[in-house]
Amino acid sequence: MTERMILHEYAASGNCYKVRLTAACVGEHLERREYDIMKGETRTIEFMWDVNPNGRIPVLQVGHRFIPESNAACYFIADGSNVIPNDRFEHADMLRLMFWEQYSHEPNIATLRFWKDWVGHDNLTEAQKHQIPGKREAGDAALKLMNKHLEARDWFVGTAMTLADLCLFPYTHVAGEAGFDFIHYPRVVDWMERVKGQPHYIPMSA
Amino acid sequence: MTERMILHEYAASGNCYKVRLTAACVGEHLERREYDIMKGETRTIEFMWDVNPNGRIPVLQVGHRFIPESNAACYFIADGSNVIPNDRFEHADMLRLMFWEQYSHEPNIATLRFWKDWVGHDNLTEAQKHQIPGKREAGDAALKLMNKHLEARDWFVGTAMTLADLCLFPYTHVAGEAGFDFIHYPRVVDWMERVKGQPHYIPMSA
Repeated sequence: MTERMILHEYAASGNCYKVRLTAACVGEHLERREYDIMKGETRTIEFMWDVNPNGRIPVLQVGHRFIPESNAACYFIADGSNVIPNDRFEHADMLRLMFWEQYSHEPNIATLRFWKDWVGHDNLTEAQKHQIPGKREAGDAALKLMNKHLEARDWFVGTAMTLADLCLFPYTHVAGEAGFDFIHYPRVVDWMERVKGQPHYIPMSA
Repeated sequence: MTERMILHEYAASGNCYKVRLTAACVGEHLERREYDIMKGETRTIEFMWDVNPNGRIPVLQVGHRFIPESNAACYFIADGSNVIPNDRFEHADMLRLMFWEQYSHEPNIATLRFWKDWVGHDNLTEAQKHQIPGKREAGDAALKLMNKHLEARDWFVGTAMTLADLCLFPYTHVAGEAGFDFIHYPRVVDWMERVKGQPHYIPMSA
């Protein structure tokens, strides 16, 4: 990578940790710029003009250009490395797990964690409170699917860690903070230990 | 493509149309298997065992293997074609629009269309009814972002149609069925006409 890369982030977000974890695992250096999402620092006119009109983090800056969406930023960083399979089917299988993560995992597990530990139950809107049981059920369904997927394999795609694992790990490993119980998902626990045992692994707090 | 490809689908789903539209645009043949999601035909034990444990369509079958998640199926079909940019940044930019589509566009516009025209307002749960205003606002925000993005360009990435356009088109072009008004989004209307004018374009009903 010749162009300087800057991660615009909120460090406690699993979506931001994904990008740092991927960079660490493929040996790329990231500069970091922290924004306090609880103070609306990514919803300012400046941020939305300069960085991301969607007002969301993470955004990966590459030179003077920007890549929003955590999983796309991870792909950019990892492109050409050994965590992106060369095989056409395995590559698509990796992507489908990344799309699944954003559609069926993150909106349930990450959102419940955010509502519980950042917003606080008393501050939720009525519409949000009504969504809690559905998100709880869907989050457990997601963890159950992951556990089933891992019954016959160590990694989500093929026989080694890929970007699918790196994108699924961050919000899975803090699912306890959202009130999910890993006792039902022993294969997921084993897989999380495998990720943590990788030589370039960094924790969320790094 | 040497292996036979079968699309397991519900034809009126925009996510399924995406896969057919992509195949048409890159000249790949798909066999089709229709399931009636309103009768629960993708939630049967057989479907969930044989095709997708997530119980969702579309699923692309490639030989004896399966790719769920519409955007991943589209990528598999288009891999190596001219709708996937070779440039590393443009490739990541295409993916970020595809992730954005699944996170910020589809759950709002497609879901409101489904609730309105398939489920029917009177049959919605209380939790669903509470989500309507938020989804309406977020759907308009998505269309507004698209319109802004297209102010200075004809296509979402680079200077020609890519997979980002093919994945954004299906639910956008039926947003009127969900009650969204295109009068606010003239650039989006122009872009939809450009997609429809492509030589291998097929309509949703094809």
